[in-house]
Amino acid sequence: MTQFNPVSDKVLVELTAVLTPNQISTARADRQQHAQDMSQHEPHLSEVVVWPSSSQQVANVLRIAHAQRIPVTAWGAGSSLEGNSIPLFGGITLSLARMDQIITLHADDFQVTVQPGIGYKDLNAQLGRHGLFFAPDPGANASVGGMLANNAAGSRTVKYGATKDNVLAMEVVLANGRLIQVGSRSVKQSAGYDLLHLFVGSEGTLGVITQATLRLVPLPAYISSAVATFADVATAVSAVVDLRASGLDIAALEFIDAATSELLSREEGVDWGENPTLLLEIHAAHAETAGLDLTLVQEICQGMGAIGFAATTDTAVRQKMWHTRHHMFETLRRVFVGHRWQLADVAVPISQFPALVQFARQTLQAHNLPELLVGHAGDGNLHIAIPYKDEATRQRANLANEAVVLHAIELGGTATGEHGVGIGKAKFMMREHGETAVTVMRQLKQTLDPHGILNPGKIFPNP
Amino acid sequence: MTQFNPVSDKVLVELTAVLTPNQISTARADRQQHAQDMSQHEPHLSEVVVWPSSSQQVANVLRIAHAQRIPVTAWGAGSSLEGNSIPLFGGITLSLARMDQIITLHADDFQVTVQPGIGYKDLNAQLGRHGLFFAPDPGANASVGGMLANNAAGSRTVKYGATKDNVLAMEVVLANGRLIQVGSRSVKQSAGYDLLHLFVGSEGTLGVITQATLRLVPLPAYISSAVATFADVATAVSAVVDLRASGLDIAALEFIDAATSELLSREEGVDWGENPTLLLEIHAAHAETAGLDLTLVQEICQGMGAIGFAATTDTAVRQKMWHTRHHMFETLRRVFVGHRWQLADVAVPISQFPALVQFARQTLQAHNLPELLVGHAGDGNLHIAIPYKDEATRQRANLANEAVVLHAIELGGTATGEHGVGIGKAKFMMREHGETAVTVMRQLKQTLDPHGILNPGKIFPNP
Repeated sequence: MTQFNPVSDKVLVELTAVLTPNQISTARADRQQHAQDMSQHEPHLSEVVVWPSSSQQVANVLRIAHAQRIPVTAWGAGSSLEGNSIPLFGGITLSLARMDQIITLHADDFQVTVQPGIGYKDLNAQLGRHGLFFAPDPGANASVGGMLANNAAGSRTVKYGATKDNVLAMEVVLANGRLIQVGSRSVKQSAGYDLLHLFVGSEGTLGVITQATLRLVPLPAYISSAVATFADVATAVSAVVDLRASGLDIAALEFIDAATSELLSREEGVDWGENPTLLLEIHAAHAETAGLDLTLVQEICQGMGAIGFAATTDTAVRQKMWHTRHHMFETLRRVFVGHRWQLADVAVPISQFPALVQFARQTLQAHNLPELLVGHAGDGNLHIAIPYKDEATRQRANLANEAVVLHAIELGGTATGEHGVGIGKAKFMMREHGETAVTVMRQLKQTLDPHGILNPGKIFPNP
Repeated sequence: MTQFNPVSDKVLVELTAVLTPNQISTARADRQQHAQDMSQHEPHLSEVVVWPSSSQQVANVLRIAHAQRIPVTAWGAGSSLEGNSIPLFGGITLSLARMDQIITLHADDFQVTVQPGIGYKDLNAQLGRHGLFFAPDPGANASVGGMLANNAAGSRTVKYGATKDNVLAMEVVLANGRLIQVGSRSVKQSAGYDLLHLFVGSEGTLGVITQATLRLVPLPAYISSAVATFADVATAVSAVVDLRASGLDIAALEFIDAATSELLSREEGVDWGENPTLLLEIHAAHAETAGLDLTLVQEICQGMGAIGFAATTDTAVRQKMWHTRHHMFETLRRVFVGHRWQLADVAVPISQFPALVQFARQTLQAHNLPELLVGHAGDGNLHIAIPYKDEATRQRANLANEAVVLHAIELGGTATGEHGVGIGKAKFMMREHGETAVTVMRQLKQTLDPHGILNPGKIFPNP
C-alpha cells in the first residue's frame, strides 16, 4: 500500500481546478502548521495543504488522490495525541477547518447537524443558548470531525459516553470520492450493517467525515462538584470502584495523584493539597436530587477514609476546578521547562483500575521516572505524563509506557482509551485484538481504500 | 452468491465427525421446528439442524460449510419478527440453544459474559439476585445472541439504549470458521475499527456470535409507573414529544391507540379505557426523585390535556401493565381468530412521531384496515399490527406497510427500528441508505463471507 506518487505539477493543476486559489497552498509555512499534532511524534510535512469548503470539494480532492495514488491525511484542529493527523507519507493534508458551520439544530430531537471543522467548545457555546450541549469533552478545542475520527472521550464520558455514543448519522466521503450517508436521525435503527460506527474511530483511514448529526443533552438544571482527598493512592482508587458500584450516576470522576495535586495546587491556586485527589461532578434535574447524590458520594468517600471532602454548587469554584484539570498539561509543560512528553492512555474494566494504578506506579519507580498520573477514573482510563529531555530518559519513558500498555491489555483493557491508535499504539494492535481480528481490520481497509491513500501509516503495524 | 451445494451424505459425515450424535438431526420434525420465526413470512426447511455446545464446534461446522458451500442460518429462540432466522436456502440450521450458560459475572464492573443461547429473561432472573439487570427487553424471551444479531430494543430503550448500546465485547466465528474477539471489557476503547458494532445487527450474515460480554445496570431503587389517557391521538403523541423535550429521564414511554386500549382493557382487565394511552415508567435512585419526576410527568401530561392520569409505585399494578403490553400480540391473536398478521416496525426522529402516526392512521383508513397502533413512542418507534385472512386483505396490508415505511424514511427515519431487515425490509434498503452505502455493505459481506454462506437471502435486496 505504500506505492504512492508525489504531488506533481499535474496533480496540482487538477487540484487547482476543483478548488479556489485560497483553498490550496504548497507554502512551507502552511505545510509546517499541519506537520505535527500535540503528541511527541516527529513532525512530517505534506506536499500540499487544501482547505475545501464543501463535501463536494472533499469528494473532488479524494477522487483525484485516488486516481493518482496520493496519500490524504484529514486535519481537524491538530489536537490529537498519538500522531493521528501527522501526514507520515506526505501527499495532501486535507484541512476541514473551513467547514465549521452548524447546518441544522433539531432542538426537539436534541440533535444538531454540523460540519466537521467546528470546535466542540464553539459548538457548545452556541448550543448553550438553547439549553443543550454536546457531552464529550476531550479538553483542547478539538474539532468535532477529529473527535469522531478518533472516538475522543474525556471527563464526562462516565455519564454520557464517548463520541461514538453521541453521534447518530454522518456523511462520509470514501477513498474513491463517493459520498455516502451512514446512520440515521432516528435514535432507533436496525436496518443493516452499522457503517456509522465503522467510520467513527477509524482515524481517517476509511473515509473523510464531512457532516455529522450529533446527539445532544439538556443542560443539567443542577450541577454540583466535589473534591475528595485521600491519604494514599490505593484508598483513592478503591473509592472510585465503590462510587461506581454504588450505581450513582456520576457525571465526572477524575483521579489525580499526589504529585500532580501538589503541583497544581502550587501553580494554579487550587486547594487540593498534596494528596491523591478525586474530582467529581454531579448533574441532576432537581435540587433535592443533587443534594442527596452529594451526600451519598460524601458517605462513600469518607467510608473509604477520605481525609478531605469539599462539595460546592458554586459555578466559579467548579469552573476553576475544571480549568485547572483541563489545562494541567499546559501547566506541566510550563513547570518542566524544555522537556518533551510521553503521554500514556490506557483503560481497563473499573474493577482493575486499582491494580493498573499500582502497576503503573511501580513501573515508573523502577524506571526512575516521576509519578504524574491522572485519569478519567470513573471509566477506568489512566493517563501518565512522562517528561524527558535526553535520549536515555526517552527510552525509559517508552519502556514504562510499553509495560503499562501490556499490563492494561492483560487486565482485560486496551492500549488506548481515547487518544486512538495513531502512530504510537499500532504496535500493540495484535496483542490487544489478536491476529485474526487485525487481519479482518486490514481486509476492511483494503476493501474501502484499495490504494491505501487514506492516512497511511496509522492504526496498522508495519504498513 | 446463491451457488450453494446440498447437504450431501458426505457433508453429513463431516458434520457428524465434529458433533456428537445428539447434536445433529435431519428429522423433519426438528427441521420444521426451525423453519419459521414469529413473523408472517413463509416457513422454509433447512436440510439439517445442529446444536453445537461450544465455540469450537460452531467453528468446526462453519469450516465445513465454508469449504462445501452450504448455507448456515444461526438460530436463537426463533422469536424474530421479520423472517430473520428462516433458512431460506436450506442448508444448515445452527441452533445456539444449548450454549445457554452464564460464563462469568463481573459484578464490580456491571458486566456479564454469556453464551448466546441464554434467554434474556432467564438471564435477568439470575442477575436480579445480584441487584443487576440487562436492560433491553424486546418482549418474547429472545435469546441474547438473537438480540445481538438483530440489535433488538424494546420498551426500556428510551433510557438504556438498544442492544448495541449494551454490549462491550463478543466472540464471533467468521464464515471460514476462524474465531475472533471484538470489543473490550474496558468501557473506553479507541483501538482501531469498531468490529463489535459491525457484527451487532448483522443478522448472522457476517459471523456467528458465540459469546458476549454485556453491560448491566443496577436495579433501580425506586420504580414508579403511570398510565395517562388522552381524548385523541394527536394530543397523546404531542405529549410524548413534550415529555422527551422536558429532558426527564423516563425509563419507558409507550403509546397505545384507542382501539388497542379498548381491546386490552376488555380482554386483560386493565383499566385503560377506550382512549389513546401512554404507559410510563420512571427509575430513580431516591424516593424523593421518583416523586418529583412523577409530578413533572403529570404536569406535562395534564398540560397537554390528559383526561386521565394514574400513577403508582405498586409493583403488582406495574407488572400487570407490562404483562398486558408485552403479551398484547398474543391477545390480538386470540381475539382475531384465524388471522395472520403483518407487523410494521418503523422509527423516526421523535419530533416527527406525531406526523408518522397521523400518516399511518390515514393510510390504514384508506386501505380499510383496523387501526391497531402501538409504539415505543419515546424512541419514535411505531408498530402497526394488521390482521388478514384473505389474499386481498394481505395485499392491502402490504401496501399500507410499504406506504408507512416509505413515509418514515422520508421523515428522516428508518424501515426498521428494532425488528431488523430480515426478508421483509430488504426492498427498502436502497431507499433508506442510498445505493453507495448498500454497495459498501455488500462489499463488507463479500469480504467477510466470500461464498455467501451466512444466512443468505437476508438484508440485501435481490441476493
